[in-house]
Amino acid sequence: MLIIGELLNTSRSTVEAAVKARDVAFIQRIAKKQTLAGASLIDVNAGTFGVEEPEVLVWLVNTIQEVVHASLCIDSPNPRAIEAALKVCHRKAMVNSITAEKERYERIVPLVKCYGASVVALCMDEKGVPDNADDRIAIAEHLASRLTEDGIPRDDIYLDAIVRPVSVSPKDGTVALDTVRGIRQRIPGVHTICGLSNVSFGLPCRKLLNRTFLCILMGAGLDSVILDPLDREILAAVYAAEALLGRDEFCMDYISAYRNKKLTGGSPSL
Amino acid sequence: MLIIGELLNTSRSTVEAAVKARDVAFIQRIAKKQTLAGASLIDVNAGTFGVEEPEVLVWLVNTIQEVVHASLCIDSPNPRAIEAALKVCHRKAMVNSITAEKERYERIVPLVKCYGASVVALCMDEKGVPDNADDRIAIAEHLASRLTEDGIPRDDIYLDAIVRPVSVSPKDGTVALDTVRGIRQRIPGVHTICGLSNVSFGLPCRKLLNRTFLCILMGAGLDSVILDPLDREILAAVYAAEALLGRDEFCMDYISAYRNKKLTGGSPSL
Repeated sequence: MLIIGELLNTSRSTVEAAVKARDVAFIQRIAKKQTLAGASLIDVNAGTFGVEEPEVLVWLVNTIQEVVHASLCIDSPNPRAIEAALKVCHRKAMVNSITAEKERYERIVPLVKCYGASVVALCMDEKGVPDNADDRIAIAEHLASRLTEDGIPRDDIYLDAIVRPVSVSPKDGTVALDTVRGIRQRIPGVHTICGLSNVSFGLPCRKLLNRTFLCILMGAGLDSVILDPLDREILAAVYAAEALLGRDEFCMDYISAYRNKKLTGGSPSL
Repeated sequence: MLIIGELLNTSRSTVEAAVKARDVAFIQRIAKKQTLAGASLIDVNAGTFGVEEPEVLVWLVNTIQEVVHASLCIDSPNPRAIEAALKVCHRKAMVNSITAEKERYERIVPLVKCYGASVVALCMDEKGVPDNADDRIAIAEHLASRLTEDGIPRDDIYLDAIVRPVSVSPKDGTVALDTVRGIRQRIPGVHTICGLSNVSFGLPCRKLLNRTFLCILMGAGLDSVILDPLDREILAAVYAAEALLGRDEFCMDYISAYRNKKLTGGSPSL
């Protein structure tokens, strides 16, 4: 399971404050904690900074790269911010995200190709996010074939089924689930990804819902996820699901996680 | 989700001792605890008692019926024991289990029909349990059509994909998962069920594996399960999964479980 740590997002007030103060130690500590906990990529999002976003992203990328070897996931819809950040990435990055919207696609995909990045592609187009799985899968198929034509290798394509709150739209959980399963069955060679925490918006015990939904989606073929890697219980669920789905040979990672006391206990605070 | 409480099984030493002593209070306490926790049926298994099994099952059924309104799940491969127990059940019972093995099928199904019970049918035949999903689904299709021909309503058929330890056979988790999904897609009108705890045999943190696997299977369409309803964390996962899968209108059961403090906290001991 590819885990992308979601914590360095300036929509979180502590992160925004640290960025404003250019608090290198705070940012580096969270980056290190996330990689130690199991994140292979660190998401960086400075969307709250408006016109300063490119500059802030560059500062974040440089700050994080000083202390961790994880790759960066550049989380922005803004081509200028994406390009500024990609220019300073030392390692292969991920761009989060494109959609099937013409302008967004055409401005961002050339950057993805030029910098050899991987890309998160959301199953939505000019008409928005479809409310049924068939239409989302059709957009996924369109995106996968167009990205392939445009020279992006299949292994660098991460299709995002789009997770929305079940408190708002009760059937949206199954729509996302059926979309993941459909992508897995019908589009060979690509990855499936999602941002998880949206699903529980507006409901109590959000972590319980998030980790339950992650298990359900992994059973349908999800192989990448953006989440809080400091939530020990969701990481334990990932280890368990990998063992149960035959993705962990002889359950060795699961047993090793148990020996390293990663399967029990509460969540450390940030 | 139909929950069948698994605790009244004489393979558990405390239950065996209580049955030997005909300890009515102990048995009734566990029956009540399981129904209060959310079990709609109470499994009774006296397999360790050999030739005394029919007599012990009758005593168990009578003892439990005195205090709970839940139905009984008569858990035995022995037609004599099943018939003795069915004779004294006040409410519609479930028979656990038949297989596609000729003798077992032909001796038990007439009892299921005569007493108007529902039935758990394991996806295995004379050759044993297939090691792949296609063959298990083929057995499920055969069982469903034969049971229908023999007058058992679809709604009374619970097809069991058979869960085996992933520590022994790493791919068996996905085989069970694919079997549940295949039954759901190809055999309309029937239920899917499983005994869960087998999956984690031989591994640490078994409850983590059990509840993770339950979420995965629910995502594939599982609608009934035999488990320990006193495990608060697995019940919380069931509430979460029902909400996420659109089976809990407006998440009302989930929110009510939260208000009744069922979504948090540790497991009470037996």
